[in-house]
Amino acid sequence: MLECEACGEQYEPEQNIQLCECGEPLRLEYFHGDIKEGKRDVWSRYGEFFPFEVDEKLSLGEGNTPLLKAPSISKKLDVNLYLKNETVNPTWSFKDRGTILSLQRAVGLRIKKFGTVSTGNMATSVSAYGARNGMTSIVLVPANISDKKIEQISTYGPVLIKVTGDYGDLYYESLEVGKDEIYFTNSNSPFRIEGYKTIVFEICEEFIPDYVIIPMSSGGLFRGLTKGFKELKKSGIIDEIPTLISAQAEGCSPICEAYQSGEEEIERWSEPDTVASAISNPFPPGGNDVLRKLKEHVGMCERVSDKAIINAQNEIAQEGIFCQPSSAVGIAALKNLRRKNKIEDGVDVVSIITGAGLKGEMVSDDEQAISRCDLEDLKTCLTRFF
Amino acid sequence: MLECEACGEQYEPEQNIQLCECGEPLRLEYFHGDIKEGKRDVWSRYGEFFPFEVDEKLSLGEGNTPLLKAPSISKKLDVNLYLKNETVNPTWSFKDRGTILSLQRAVGLRIKKFGTVSTGNMATSVSAYGARNGMTSIVLVPANISDKKIEQISTYGPVLIKVTGDYGDLYYESLEVGKDEIYFTNSNSPFRIEGYKTIVFEICEEFIPDYVIIPMSSGGLFRGLTKGFKELKKSGIIDEIPTLISAQAEGCSPICEAYQSGEEEIERWSEPDTVASAISNPFPPGGNDVLRKLKEHVGMCERVSDKAIINAQNEIAQEGIFCQPSSAVGIAALKNLRRKNKIEDGVDVVSIITGAGLKGEMVSDDEQAISRCDLEDLKTCLTRFF
Repeated sequence: MLECEACGEQYEPEQNIQLCECGEPLRLEYFHGDIKEGKRDVWSRYGEFFPFEVDEKLSLGEGNTPLLKAPSISKKLDVNLYLKNETVNPTWSFKDRGTILSLQRAVGLRIKKFGTVSTGNMATSVSAYGARNGMTSIVLVPANISDKKIEQISTYGPVLIKVTGDYGDLYYESLEVGKDEIYFTNSNSPFRIEGYKTIVFEICEEFIPDYVIIPMSSGGLFRGLTKGFKELKKSGIIDEIPTLISAQAEGCSPICEAYQSGEEEIERWSEPDTVASAISNPFPPGGNDVLRKLKEHVGMCERVSDKAIINAQNEIAQEGIFCQPSSAVGIAALKNLRRKNKIEDGVDVVSIITGAGLKGEMVSDDEQAISRCDLEDLKTCLTRFF
Repeated sequence: MLECEACGEQYEPEQNIQLCECGEPLRLEYFHGDIKEGKRDVWSRYGEFFPFEVDEKLSLGEGNTPLLKAPSISKKLDVNLYLKNETVNPTWSFKDRGTILSLQRAVGLRIKKFGTVSTGNMATSVSAYGARNGMTSIVLVPANISDKKIEQISTYGPVLIKVTGDYGDLYYESLEVGKDEIYFTNSNSPFRIEGYKTIVFEICEEFIPDYVIIPMSSGGLFRGLTKGFKELKKSGIIDEIPTLISAQAEGCSPICEAYQSGEEEIERWSEPDTVASAISNPFPPGGNDVLRKLKEHVGMCERVSDKAIINAQNEIAQEGIFCQPSSAVGIAALKNLRRKNKIEDGVDVVSIITGAGLKGEMVSDDEQAISRCDLEDLKTCLTRFF
């Protein structure tokens, strides 16, 4: 069952619908169950927590990532910090966990084209899983995407289209024009969110932290982790849900802005400007739902400067992980919160390291042998691939 | 015990010695033992196969990589091909498996500086593990290394030195000048080789293939895998050792050249020229030992063109893995061998995908804020860091 947390509307799972009529992203019902011990992959171990069985043929071996103690930063900040290293996923970001579940959903709907709207990581992930499974992948990227990301994405041979126009609007427009021909798995797609729960499942197999810090852009990762924690609590596997901290870059922080001003709804960020390009969504589709969750769980939201992000990226490298600037916002936020005494001494903190530094995030608008289209012409542009 | 396979000389393990007086690389004795079931990390499961316990604090979570069926290539070539995806290691190449064991060795020798001579992957790996564990890492790279690799390496903050001069000679020279002050873990360091065995251990937990294809440069990976298979056979865990295929780029294939000409010793390759820069060692220190192993096990050696490498890289991407050109030589070799009917229909083949395509291998000699020195002045140059 697909449900809207904002207005309560329900939709049958046979429908390829991702957004409620009220405009908010849908989610699947809350699952509960038991862990099947002894199974190696997280999809089998937590089989009861998913709406369907995940066909292992679709898998590239995502998940089962290390949860690494960060001794230097821990010592400096007087906390026990652990880094959940998502950079060792098959396409080197956490997106793979959501992509496989989305692909399984597309297969279930008998849709043969697999699309996404992405600033980079999700595009790479969707292209890789699509290629492996003989689907046509259709990837819509912003016109100012970095060359490095273009290189990674195009390796897998998707239909790659640079779209000029508002990136936030592109999200909604793609779902509209894709319909039953292209299964678009965008940042807040209900089945993508389901996949992210596995991060929580893996963490809680090791220990239950006091705080979990989540770099935030569209809100998808935050929503997935929240759902995962709720389901574990509902299943009696954990007693308490850790305090969730969402971290944004100062140069694009519509969710923190709304949370800290006590608003019910986010407002579009006018001019995103941050080194953390992978988390610079000006109008996050999951933003209002994140606001609700932050209130419900008394979470925190913290904004960090580009300078602090770069510093944190270097400190994380000293723990042995070269991450994207976007992944470093978590540690930058932790430093702020410790300075402000909002987090106690000696607590256990997990920060999600979302993607590999190898990916690069310097933006350019170099000419490449790829398609281009304006957002206004998206439908015409995509018709070629229907 | 450290032993020389060429001349039989033995050395006490307390000595920091990596090369025999006869010039050939040393290796540790052959271990045998039982698998400790139920342990998650490969170092504990195969604890009896290593000369010491691996301190988990040193680890970045290397190993436990997916062994992925490659359905498209399998179908095209009428074999069952599996890809051992080493691109999801902590620094995105197989080198991490050897680096942690080398680091444990350095700790055991109470040497505080951790060095390597590398075209890129090993430099990244050594820098990451060194940084995490508070060592000074000293990385000697060829002057024509790619900017992308420089970026990755320097993120971890090592002492980074571009050395002009013969890359093959640098290997020997570094061991000489490092001595008791810097533990240089180069491509064929005995403890590095030990780490690579874990690839074999993991493969054989899934199934015993008929063939294993190994991209080859210095010979270290090949020597490690051979040792792993021998040890499993000696322990009664496997009955037969698969046929080992070493794959080289036509533009730098001193080992295949010698093997196919029936020589006992390799000759220096005069002018390496291949897109697969990570495997373009013109005078591989493990070369003669690989020749012995190829003869002993009736292995194969196959050379492939740059064009075939690029084609194979694209075919591997269609299976969902974006690998380095150097990793693609295995599949290019498999295609040659099938064409020549040297490999039968329907056999089980594993090819090692050694490193991530994200790393980039285009070479340049751009100016960077890093040290430079000429091979002739290496000792003086390094003295600053003693």
